[in-house]
Amino acid sequence: MTTPDPALDLAPDMVVDPAVEAHLAATREARLASYFELLRIPSVSTLPEHAGDMRAAAAWIAAELARIGFEHAEASPTPGHPVVYADWLHAEGAPTVIVYCHYDVQPVDPIELWETAPFEPFVRDGRVIGRGSADDKGQLHMHLRAAEALFATRGRLPLNLRVVFEGEEEASSSSMPGWLEANRHRLAADVVAVTDTGFFEGNIPAITESLRGILYTQIDVSGPPTDVHSGSYGGNVENPANALARIIAELKDRNGLVQVPGFYDDVVPVDPAVRARLAALPFDEAAYLARIGVPALAGEAAYTVLEREGARPTLDVNGIWGGFQGDGAKTIIPAHAHAKVSMRLVANQDPLRLFELFRAHVLEIAPPGVRVEVQRLGTGRPVSTSVDQPLVRAVAKALQATFGREPVFMRSGGSIPIAEMFEQQLGLPVVLMGFTNPDDNAHAPNESMVLANYETGIRTICLLWDMLGRDGLE
Amino acid sequence: MTTPDPALDLAPDMVVDPAVEAHLAATREARLASYFELLRIPSVSTLPEHAGDMRAAAAWIAAELARIGFEHAEASPTPGHPVVYADWLHAEGAPTVIVYCHYDVQPVDPIELWETAPFEPFVRDGRVIGRGSADDKGQLHMHLRAAEALFATRGRLPLNLRVVFEGEEEASSSSMPGWLEANRHRLAADVVAVTDTGFFEGNIPAITESLRGILYTQIDVSGPPTDVHSGSYGGNVENPANALARIIAELKDRNGLVQVPGFYDDVVPVDPAVRARLAALPFDEAAYLARIGVPALAGEAAYTVLEREGARPTLDVNGIWGGFQGDGAKTIIPAHAHAKVSMRLVANQDPLRLFELFRAHVLEIAPPGVRVEVQRLGTGRPVSTSVDQPLVRAVAKALQATFGREPVFMRSGGSIPIAEMFEQQLGLPVVLMGFTNPDDNAHAPNESMVLANYETGIRTICLLWDMLGRDGLE
Repeated sequence: MTTPDPALDLAPDMVVDPAVEAHLAATREARLASYFELLRIPSVSTLPEHAGDMRAAAAWIAAELARIGFEHAEASPTPGHPVVYADWLHAEGAPTVIVYCHYDVQPVDPIELWETAPFEPFVRDGRVIGRGSADDKGQLHMHLRAAEALFATRGRLPLNLRVVFEGEEEASSSSMPGWLEANRHRLAADVVAVTDTGFFEGNIPAITESLRGILYTQIDVSGPPTDVHSGSYGGNVENPANALARIIAELKDRNGLVQVPGFYDDVVPVDPAVRARLAALPFDEAAYLARIGVPALAGEAAYTVLEREGARPTLDVNGIWGGFQGDGAKTIIPAHAHAKVSMRLVANQDPLRLFELFRAHVLEIAPPGVRVEVQRLGTGRPVSTSVDQPLVRAVAKALQATFGREPVFMRSGGSIPIAEMFEQQLGLPVVLMGFTNPDDNAHAPNESMVLANYETGIRTICLLWDMLGRDGLE
Repeated sequence: MTTPDPALDLAPDMVVDPAVEAHLAATREARLASYFELLRIPSVSTLPEHAGDMRAAAAWIAAELARIGFEHAEASPTPGHPVVYADWLHAEGAPTVIVYCHYDVQPVDPIELWETAPFEPFVRDGRVIGRGSADDKGQLHMHLRAAEALFATRGRLPLNLRVVFEGEEEASSSSMPGWLEANRHRLAADVVAVTDTGFFEGNIPAITESLRGILYTQIDVSGPPTDVHSGSYGGNVENPANALARIIAELKDRNGLVQVPGFYDDVVPVDPAVRARLAALPFDEAAYLARIGVPALAGEAAYTVLEREGARPTLDVNGIWGGFQGDGAKTIIPAHAHAKVSMRLVANQDPLRLFELFRAHVLEIAPPGVRVEVQRLGTGRPVSTSVDQPLVRAVAKALQATFGREPVFMRSGGSIPIAEMFEQQLGLPVVLMGFTNPDDNAHAPNESMVLANYETGIRTICLLWDMLGRDGLE
């Protein structure tokens, strides 16, 4: 646990309730044991053989929620894995917050790169190592323990909470639209706190103020019904792989600008305040380059690395294939060639409108002599939260009080589908608050959570709920 | 068997020797039985499980050669499959011709598309159906039977023949350079008759006057050491698949012209005589388009389809791959992407010089931020035979006399590595003479040989050898 910097000028109400702190100090060992118990359940949502583990994890969490004081705790069925729901709604006049985390984890492959068994967590050098220690069972467990500390010391919470713990975040949240719709009646709230993000490079406390949206497509180019001989037909028959390469090349210029007409029409110019916030971040470009392991960075020259990641749209090939992929030489014109092409979007780009523009442009630039189809495989709108949003301000204060440092604001280049769903389907504001260390190896071998982030973050949550209970969302 | 058009004004010495014709007429059934016997040996050179069949086929052919009258018949070992060699060199003062065929065949996959067992040949609608019936065991067998008819009726041949029957033509002829070098002492000859080509569309007798050369390469583009998240890094990290697409797109313009500087420096302009010969061919572009099954043809506007195929170089992607190829969406920037890129070459392009130009250009146009390597996987020089070559003139006359129609001259878009080897390694002129019907399904299911081509072609060979024995190569 990090001790707040004594030099910080904190208001007297900006400290964790001493009774809560005493409870947390006394239960540290039990807390770690419970955290490990949850991590030991291999809740891999995408692998069918773990369906039983998914049910076990959901049941474990629902039982914990009920035990510590929540009501209506249940593993709520979906066509996929259950959503764990619970609530406590007796803080009259106080705000209602939905807490969102997910209890499913990524597969462990490549297993051979793990230094230890992924579902046998242990502590080394101040970190809990194991699959899910950070993403997102660690953060889910922090919410459990924070609520427990408040219930245990007072028999109640200072605000109204609804808990929504998903089991398919690593599987595209595919059951969530249906579940949100079916459970709309018990999802009334003032705001959603999505706890699935983390801190900035150097483990600096951070709030994510935006996520990029996404448009994911597949381009299918076909020529002759079967592969034909490149000697007999080369020079007369348009080659689907050459045609696909031409289409992809013409989608983006050498400066990284997407060439689809209308692509930038709705892009909000980077706000001077955003630009200033990003410029103030302690970003080390040389270290970034070294970490990625490429000879040079690419991208739009008029923007910084963090602006390109967080405030500018882009286009990438995620996969490409066609024809002969073996060793040696096979002399064919492939019958077909394919590419997965995705675009990351920023406010106020509309993925559905962009798909129409994209598709029309691909068909427009396709060479004659081949047939081209464009499929839409997925969309997500960009999400952003004003830094002046009341919950954001409160989270910032709570982070500063507990971690001893004013948080920075980050703009994530990624997308979290559930954030968009809460916004679009339920019309609720979403705040992205999370505590993981940026070197957590989420989705990779040797995932880890810095124990100080976990412990201090529990205090942050307790303080935050107390602040909201006292001051509301003002 | 086609009867020569009685209207043809043939010189009296331009008919098949009546004794030979009588022998052939009397042995027709035995000939078909022997043809089927050879086809039943599944001599697939590229599949290790057929190594024994390859030896059996070589032994069968060597025994036949010895039986009918050749000398020094043997299955000559190589690091791969044997070369069957034999000779008969007692026609003093007459020319010496090397006859080249191959006894290996393509694999039969996709086996489910064959209407009958590929190695159980049978006759239907005037065709022999079975793997190798045309390419090239059928044509090899024609040479056996033609020589047999001459030996049987006269006890000798009218000219000197050396037989070279390869077992690895469908496996890149990889043992042939070494075998030719080691057997140089017994390969002295005036000319090589490579019998592995066929007739023009409509089954019109034809002589192939040129083959394109080839330069086969692989482009490897790499970025970060592992796939990285396209959300986190999209817009800042050059994507190897996008970079590869750009490189490929810039190798060729929309008109089909290769953009590698110097690529056309050594290309011989299409000769007016060649242009006239190709223009005179009964080529049906609509039927060609319908047969390939593409919506439109592509290529250099200044050239006809047959000029593009036979007299112009080109560039094709034979395969491309990188990143995610599964169903659905995976949001990555792939660590690497690859393409097999081959160029078909014409006189006087040098594949080794072009590789250096190609490689330099690829590295020149590669975007910064990725590493690019270019491998050379294979080369072959273009081959061409003057239409005034004495053996070509003789073949043309023999075809006209036996098939009743003046042959056309074709320029093949493909490459036959062995033709280049005879030319380059042994300095011998090569003539491409062959009898297969153009719809023979070589390399595909339901391969077939038109029996009339087979029967008449045997007469063509007998007449040709007699003409050469009498007139020499004049």
